[in-house]
Amino acid sequence: MRSNDAHRGGSTPHPPRTRREAEIRLYGVNACRAAFAHRPNDLRKVWLTEANIPAFKPVLAWCVQHRIGYRVVEDDEIERLTESSHHEGVCLAMLRREPPSLDDTLAGIDADAPALLLWLHGVGNPHNLGAILRSAAHFGVRAALLSDATALSPAAWRVAEGGAETVPCVQAANVEQTRTKLHRAGFRLAATVVRDGHSLYEASLPSRLALLLGAEGTGLPQSLTDRADVRLRIPGTGAVESLNVSVASALLIAEWARVHKTDA
Amino acid sequence: MRSNDAHRGGSTPHPPRTRREAEIRLYGVNACRAAFAHRPNDLRKVWLTEANIPAFKPVLAWCVQHRIGYRVVEDDEIERLTESSHHEGVCLAMLRREPPSLDDTLAGIDADAPALLLWLHGVGNPHNLGAILRSAAHFGVRAALLSDATALSPAAWRVAEGGAETVPCVQAANVEQTRTKLHRAGFRLAATVVRDGHSLYEASLPSRLALLLGAEGTGLPQSLTDRADVRLRIPGTGAVESLNVSVASALLIAEWARVHKTDA
Repeated sequence: MRSNDAHRGGSTPHPPRTRREAEIRLYGVNACRAAFAHRPNDLRKVWLTEANIPAFKPVLAWCVQHRIGYRVVEDDEIERLTESSHHEGVCLAMLRREPPSLDDTLAGIDADAPALLLWLHGVGNPHNLGAILRSAAHFGVRAALLSDATALSPAAWRVAEGGAETVPCVQAANVEQTRTKLHRAGFRLAATVVRDGHSLYEASLPSRLALLLGAEGTGLPQSLTDRADVRLRIPGTGAVESLNVSVASALLIAEWARVHKTDA
Repeated sequence: MRSNDAHRGGSTPHPPRTRREAEIRLYGVNACRAAFAHRPNDLRKVWLTEANIPAFKPVLAWCVQHRIGYRVVEDDEIERLTESSHHEGVCLAMLRREPPSLDDTLAGIDADAPALLLWLHGVGNPHNLGAILRSAAHFGVRAALLSDATALSPAAWRVAEGGAETVPCVQAANVEQTRTKLHRAGFRLAATVVRDGHSLYEASLPSRLALLLGAEGTGLPQSLTDRADVRLRIPGTGAVESLNVSVASALLIAEWARVHKTDA
């Protein structure tokens, strides 16, 4: 089997293909496998290299069964499609899901149970955002609130290695509304700071916590830091100015998980 | 002042410029500032953009005082010199130091005192290696043993944000010799594994510990994992296959530091 032209006449078990904007082209082996595993019904088209056929056998079987198009192509075609050299020989066109709302996300979390959320401000670098989602998935973070949800690009998706499928990414552009809703749902807000603040390893970490993280370099806006319920720093030697934001995120998440043991 | 042609006749306070191979071209603002702060006598030449003059004022003053050449240039010239687009507008030619020997490194660590070492196998990706050195510097890791010390490229140096200046990187190509020397110096060896092994948060972490870390994807050679004194895993949900190696390293380092409190 070399290709499978879907939609060749007759009705299909899927709704007709919508506009290109309604699709996202994911790439990277683990990101694509996770996307298929979590929402096979969103699959619209597959491109892969011959070398990836064995790893994507279940995906191709699904394509045949559901009349989804797939093509076995060369690396350069996938590079053209994905506009990236980091495609790892596979690209899936998936239906783009609307990000869940903050209200729905909070409603889906058991009241009073320990729960950790991330609230990311301006973390646009796909390497950092992807690595944060990967760690968040590993430790069972319930959702990532993004000041700009468009930052969740296919590049970030790839770096997340599947983590973007299990950690809902929620748009949270309005700071005041978000704060109010989080507080109302029983979450305390922790800002991460480079100096001052409580040592992460000495602070008492609330069981329902939203961790605020800023972009590398600029950090969090002072107005947000000032109004957080707790300010946390990761104690160290001072030999470097700060830690990478994805490393800092993982340390905060892991320490919360260690204390509240929800993931082990 | 726009430039400073050093070595224009007369004797200089520095030895005459050695072969090009004896120099390394570092770039990135924090990496360059740290290199100058830690070993100004190794500085051989400076290129920087006009915008970086204020941040590098002490460096330029040193250049004038010690007749080191510097040039204010455009971005594209620094890109050409560094062969990178991530130069951040500065490049320093520094004398390349021979990596310290493992013997000297171990001799420099107080006997019986808590100490943490990293032993990296095949971590060649400069983003990961750099991020690991940055975290290692933050938490006071005493040295990083590299299976291939040439992996410490200027790209890794930049990502380390100064961490490569304070964490000695030691060549450790011979696995058997390295194991023996570490054991003789009272270090236990911990391999990091994705499954099985003791949970990092339940294991008793030896106070003198060498953490073995493998490259993302391939991990550690089984022969090394089998012969480690302890095998550690970072417990999680299983939603992603593993953590990024720089994130995993930071979690291991931080947990050791938390328990042995040498850095706070």
